[in-house]
Amino acid sequence: MNHDHDHKACSDGELPAKAPDTGRRQFLQCGTLAGAAAAFGSTIGAASLAHAQTALTRSTISHYHIPASDKTIHWGYFSKSLKELVTVESGDFVTIETITHHAYDDYERMIKGDPGAESIYYWDKTRKGVNRRGAGPMDASLFGRGAGEGLGVHICTGPVAVKDAQPGDILEVRILDVKLRPCANPKYKGKSFGSNAAAWWGFHYKDMIEEPKEREVITIYEVDAAGERNCAKAVYNFRWVPQTDPSGVLHKTIDYPGVPVDHSLVQENFGILKNVRVPIRPHFGTMGLAPAEADIVDSIPPSYTGGNIDNWRIGKGATMYYPVAVPGGLLSVGDPHASQGDSELCGTAIECSLTGTFQLILHKKAALAGTALENLNYPLLETQDEFIVHGFSFANYLAELGPKAQSEIYSKSSIDLALRDAFRKMRHFLMTTQGLSEDEAVSLMSIAVDFGITQVVDGNWGTHAIVKKSLFGVDEA
Amino acid sequence: MNHDHDHKACSDGELPAKAPDTGRRQFLQCGTLAGAAAAFGSTIGAASLAHAQTALTRSTISHYHIPASDKTIHWGYFSKSLKELVTVESGDFVTIETITHHAYDDYERMIKGDPGAESIYYWDKTRKGVNRRGAGPMDASLFGRGAGEGLGVHICTGPVAVKDAQPGDILEVRILDVKLRPCANPKYKGKSFGSNAAAWWGFHYKDMIEEPKEREVITIYEVDAAGERNCAKAVYNFRWVPQTDPSGVLHKTIDYPGVPVDHSLVQENFGILKNVRVPIRPHFGTMGLAPAEADIVDSIPPSYTGGNIDNWRIGKGATMYYPVAVPGGLLSVGDPHASQGDSELCGTAIECSLTGTFQLILHKKAALAGTALENLNYPLLETQDEFIVHGFSFANYLAELGPKAQSEIYSKSSIDLALRDAFRKMRHFLMTTQGLSEDEAVSLMSIAVDFGITQVVDGNWGTHAIVKKSLFGVDEA
Repeated sequence: MNHDHDHKACSDGELPAKAPDTGRRQFLQCGTLAGAAAAFGSTIGAASLAHAQTALTRSTISHYHIPASDKTIHWGYFSKSLKELVTVESGDFVTIETITHHAYDDYERMIKGDPGAESIYYWDKTRKGVNRRGAGPMDASLFGRGAGEGLGVHICTGPVAVKDAQPGDILEVRILDVKLRPCANPKYKGKSFGSNAAAWWGFHYKDMIEEPKEREVITIYEVDAAGERNCAKAVYNFRWVPQTDPSGVLHKTIDYPGVPVDHSLVQENFGILKNVRVPIRPHFGTMGLAPAEADIVDSIPPSYTGGNIDNWRIGKGATMYYPVAVPGGLLSVGDPHASQGDSELCGTAIECSLTGTFQLILHKKAALAGTALENLNYPLLETQDEFIVHGFSFANYLAELGPKAQSEIYSKSSIDLALRDAFRKMRHFLMTTQGLSEDEAVSLMSIAVDFGITQVVDGNWGTHAIVKKSLFGVDEA
Repeated sequence: MNHDHDHKACSDGELPAKAPDTGRRQFLQCGTLAGAAAAFGSTIGAASLAHAQTALTRSTISHYHIPASDKTIHWGYFSKSLKELVTVESGDFVTIETITHHAYDDYERMIKGDPGAESIYYWDKTRKGVNRRGAGPMDASLFGRGAGEGLGVHICTGPVAVKDAQPGDILEVRILDVKLRPCANPKYKGKSFGSNAAAWWGFHYKDMIEEPKEREVITIYEVDAAGERNCAKAVYNFRWVPQTDPSGVLHKTIDYPGVPVDHSLVQENFGILKNVRVPIRPHFGTMGLAPAEADIVDSIPPSYTGGNIDNWRIGKGATMYYPVAVPGGLLSVGDPHASQGDSELCGTAIECSLTGTFQLILHKKAALAGTALENLNYPLLETQDEFIVHGFSFANYLAELGPKAQSEIYSKSSIDLALRDAFRKMRHFLMTTQGLSEDEAVSLMSIAVDFGITQVVDGNWGTHAIVKKSLFGVDEA
């Protein structure tokens, strides 16, 4: 692994930095917030699933800032062997910068002038800023694409360890804020951009009607950075043509992340999607903990510790609950999206760099008995109004599919299987957290729970089941 | 067929009746509304897909009322051979009463005192109010369940023919109002009730955790009739036990619709789903036109002419567009639901009698060229804010699966196939109605269209794709 973490510890007592541009080149910034926990308790509100179990007795809370750079990211995989960037305590805040792995689709708009993105994407004949991209072999002996073989594609910032986290615990991750990363190129000052790749792994790819079929198309979107219009619009699109990377490897398709797109080779089509505006839903496509079952794990298939769930509801104001599988938990965040539809049909969302602020709350296994989090062995999402469970074709594919799980998962997925899993998880959720019998849970699922298709492009296909909080706790008249 | 339509034509010039209780025993009531078309044009609004093509030049519009009774319903099937109850002109209004096929789960709350429901459900040793229930053989030679064999279960009111409707035309059905049917039993005055059956055809059935497994459970819900609280609450549930119908046939499972449940044989469990309230979403699970491919068609699998789509969004304020397959179109409405979740997981919704008021607009094939309805060969839903297409495992299963389609569909369904179909239909919709290229449509689908699971219990499983109207027609800044 090319993972060279040389982070420094923060000393308490500093005020949180205001994140100046140069801040990204610092490794970590942190500060102490007195009384912040109590304040956040009331912000999150009494409806929060775990609130009642969360007793933050610390008088000071630290706030860390993790900029995105070649030193703070791992590309295309999760790993229990990664050294943590920092160890936080339960209740601490972390602001984490994330960079989209599609930024090199348009260097001018998504990398140029941004030291963090430049350090990550650096690639010349002799050196890559980040060499390993994916969970494959470093010598590219499988496909010859490059180190890691692109078996896993997401640039993930982290991991962040949580003090005392042990397998069996639950880590609650509150997403307090999500901000677009402004374009650093003065030419596009004040704007943000993202890329949507309709790629070979998309659901549409072998089912196209216009010629030439089986084409890959990249659409660049401008995203309202001020947040006032809260929408995205297409700038232009182009068809992928074979690209030779700086190491001399030809990429006929989008088969390796971060390949520089030579725009002198592509035809840029402007004036597309005229008069169309897409409301943005900024969120993190990939967020989760390191799994226990394997060392280096492809970042693409989601699993019981989260990862690439690709649910657009995992945005500002939402809370995720993850089962801890390895000591420290090891939270990583990446695959930032400005917007995505349920199914992520063509293979990607509007892939767009974002910065998130999180609060991490550790729920120890010993304290889970009798609570809503007891026996939670899947990633659970809580929004202001809803609880959402995630079903996958295989709930824990690494354990279920054996030694070849990481390749076999790509040939075994189906939405039918993922619905089966979502059904079982929602039944568990309703029986555990609401104390329902199976008969009550099954009836309620049929009349009031909405099952949707999260994604059909991540190997381990996903569904979700949404139940509204307002159904529960109504006083009998 | 036991279908004995002896309706009388309405004479214009009467005012619409106020639907007194005795009105249900009249066959049809109708009246003339002057200028109503223009008024409705403005109510539906400029955002309506077909509004621009709808030029209602008639100065008077009729309003028909079709009560539900043994004379106005067909049970468990669609058929191009059914004689129409009435022929309306494009622009006319029709109020249609519908009765749930689960009413006999609780006779006291859903049938007693209601002449229409009583006439439909009447069943003694020698006579059934409606003999055929389903598309199977009248002599029950397949399974011995009863006439029609329960191969199709929905009580459908209709059909209504539309003057001049021919194959290739599109029928627009605007749902102007949906009302709960009040309980006619004085004991429950002012209330409405529905039934949810977790049945053998449910997605959960072979995957239960509590004993005894493979049990069928019926939950009776009280639905707020006044509409003030707008929610439903469980009253009690009971496990299905073998029931002998008045003809002497034993029904070990819920295998034939309208079997009287003898409540002296079942254990009623009160106090269930305490403090749980389900917001209601009144809608018609089954609404559509007669298909051309077969004579008597099982009402369960939805298809290109609509039918049992089971999308809870097909409620008040929504508009459906159906391809006309046979002369007159032959619209029938049934399977009324008070609420359903996406997937209808356990096999049914809150099955609850409703009355709908509709306006029917015929779009002639010759006038479709260049409009948003050109080449529409699937059922399209328009709500106030959204367009929704419906994907099925087989878009037109009667044509695709051949002579044995009506039995084979039950063994061939999958959500994966239904998503494939929804993808193709949404692509068609975006390319046709918004003038997008395939590349534009595919990108937009991935970033802004939400794909959900409509139902996994109707043989021909369904998905839907939702796109917001607000995406389109934004002026370039």
